[in-house]
Amino acid sequence: MAKKNPLRVSFDDLRGFCKQAYMKAGVPDDEAQIVSDLLARSDLRGIETHGVTRLPIYIKRLQKGYVRKKCNLTFLKDKGPIGFAEAHGSMGHVVAHWAMQKAIEKAEAYGIGWISVKDSGHFGVAGLFPMMAAEKDLIGYICSNSAPMMAPFGGRDRIIGNNPLSYAFPTERYQPVVLDLSCSVVSSGKLILCRKKGEKIPLGWAYDKNGLPTDDPYEGYEGGGSLAPIGGHKGSGMVLAHEILTSVLTGGKWTKNIKSLYEEDKTGVQGTCHTFMALEPDCFVGRERFKKDMDLYIESIKESGKAESTDEILMPGEPEHRTETERLKTGIPMAENTVKELGALGESLGLTMDFASSLYSP
Amino acid sequence: MAKKNPLRVSFDDLRGFCKQAYMKAGVPDDEAQIVSDLLARSDLRGIETHGVTRLPIYIKRLQKGYVRKKCNLTFLKDKGPIGFAEAHGSMGHVVAHWAMQKAIEKAEAYGIGWISVKDSGHFGVAGLFPMMAAEKDLIGYICSNSAPMMAPFGGRDRIIGNNPLSYAFPTERYQPVVLDLSCSVVSSGKLILCRKKGEKIPLGWAYDKNGLPTDDPYEGYEGGGSLAPIGGHKGSGMVLAHEILTSVLTGGKWTKNIKSLYEEDKTGVQGTCHTFMALEPDCFVGRERFKKDMDLYIESIKESGKAESTDEILMPGEPEHRTETERLKTGIPMAENTVKELGALGESLGLTMDFASSLYSP
Repeated sequence: MAKKNPLRVSFDDLRGFCKQAYMKAGVPDDEAQIVSDLLARSDLRGIETHGVTRLPIYIKRLQKGYVRKKCNLTFLKDKGPIGFAEAHGSMGHVVAHWAMQKAIEKAEAYGIGWISVKDSGHFGVAGLFPMMAAEKDLIGYICSNSAPMMAPFGGRDRIIGNNPLSYAFPTERYQPVVLDLSCSVVSSGKLILCRKKGEKIPLGWAYDKNGLPTDDPYEGYEGGGSLAPIGGHKGSGMVLAHEILTSVLTGGKWTKNIKSLYEEDKTGVQGTCHTFMALEPDCFVGRERFKKDMDLYIESIKESGKAESTDEILMPGEPEHRTETERLKTGIPMAENTVKELGALGESLGLTMDFASSLYSP
Repeated sequence: MAKKNPLRVSFDDLRGFCKQAYMKAGVPDDEAQIVSDLLARSDLRGIETHGVTRLPIYIKRLQKGYVRKKCNLTFLKDKGPIGFAEAHGSMGHVVAHWAMQKAIEKAEAYGIGWISVKDSGHFGVAGLFPMMAAEKDLIGYICSNSAPMMAPFGGRDRIIGNNPLSYAFPTERYQPVVLDLSCSVVSSGKLILCRKKGEKIPLGWAYDKNGLPTDDPYEGYEGGGSLAPIGGHKGSGMVLAHEILTSVLTGGKWTKNIKSLYEEDKTGVQGTCHTFMALEPDCFVGRERFKKDMDLYIESIKESGKAESTDEILMPGEPEHRTETERLKTGIPMAENTVKELGALGESLGLTMDFASSLYSP
């Protein structure tokens, strides 16, 4: 049987649909714009695990009152280069967008800006926030804790997140270097997608709830398992460092107290904590020199002799940038399941925009 | 054949011997004190790969004029929380000690301090510097580039370092949490030590110069091979981020331009670049609350159910702290090779302290 080409949707249509959905759920226009842009851009850049496939659960959490419809970011301390804020269970995407903006303003004023936030929620693709700094010729950084999906090194209880970090670095002629990684070998989103697609996972990605290696994506995550850390104790230690830098620093929630997106939680706040940093190259070699040197650095890496079976050495963020460039022209391919779920969501919200009618064949 | 117990030396004697050696090589008293303390503490904490086993090469480089006998750290920019300095090929240990001290002073004044340094050299154990911040109830961070020992992801040329990072976090009742990791599965020092001991290495630690997996520690590093990154493209991306944050930011040397400790280099400067950060918990929940919460956080991790074959969950830095506590009482065991090399070094320098006479049987 020939594989059917997936239907496609334009970036603008996908973003527009998401924005309508958020506004129907009671989110103000400007905040709906921020979060829908982030969600659609995740799919545009090929990170479907953290994109519109999660729109239904985000909307459901807003409807149930687990997440604030209007973002409330209160600064408890705000002095010089540092800010410390409470998000009161607001949407992680909007919190992260605002907090990164604040870090950028502080970096422009003081050379460095550091913002730590407690009581936030899931914010999707980490890399999109430091990219805001890189667009302004600054270095951007973020780390976050997350809902439990790993066991501590030597443990079997799933109590720690895979706590991502991301850096973005501005460049002159190349696209920005964007490193975006979680401290597990793969993300939970990848396991959820494999489960949705009915695919098995390779051994070494996850452990089941008894601590045994598993090739079943459900057992490895949604069924109570643990994701494997990168580099054994090293990745596991990075998880702890990111949690300390976000939640211990802010008095926020940690480890098993952080709620999963998929958990029924009548108390409301998911409780994720994030830290954002922006750094001004003018305090060092200067913005122009830094961007030019970034180009030279990129070239020095890409010019390395290739390993067998490698045609080209790619910088962090380069695959996503290529996908974005391609999909802006040809549209974003949509998984059948996601099309169904977004269609049903649109219908339930009574959107004027019919999701199916925005799809086209490539 | 019964294995012979290694001879031991007290921390004070080992440090004293190193200090004499540095002073004989022309290093001023206060700087000899800093570097000898760091070297001996590396062995005290069980990190022999980065300790006194390297004293002969450090001294040789001083004698050959590859490294400045008197440290010269010039600040090119120094404004608010940020400092940008040039080290002119000074000893990495002293540079890092001074730069971390400066980051601490800035954190005390501005809430955060960030110091980046170019044209420095090998500084030994990364974790000892952020620990200086933790001793003052601050959070400490460091990252560095290093001499080439890895290939970029997808490449086969050994052009990038394994570029370590380290964090230290202060606590109330427990010892500080000290995460200290390089972005390779193991350090080059481990391979050098295996080669010295005549031991093979497990597959997965390193590749030979043709990009093939090897169990020969010489082929995997000193013979031109590459260390394997943690988490594949993730660890490889972290290597690049740490190099950008140190050498691209400062206009310093990068990739294959950084000289190895073991390379004959008549131009002098090894060229390693480092970045140091200190952060003030008083800008967030406050120092006392932070330290108390660190204790609670540590307990929440250590209380996890254990995996089979694990008796106890250890925090980052806990094994080293235990080794330190033990060795302060019983002395530091010395490898036979190292004893020979230090003995020869002492003789060649005409030290009044005979290294052999400071050793004792446990």
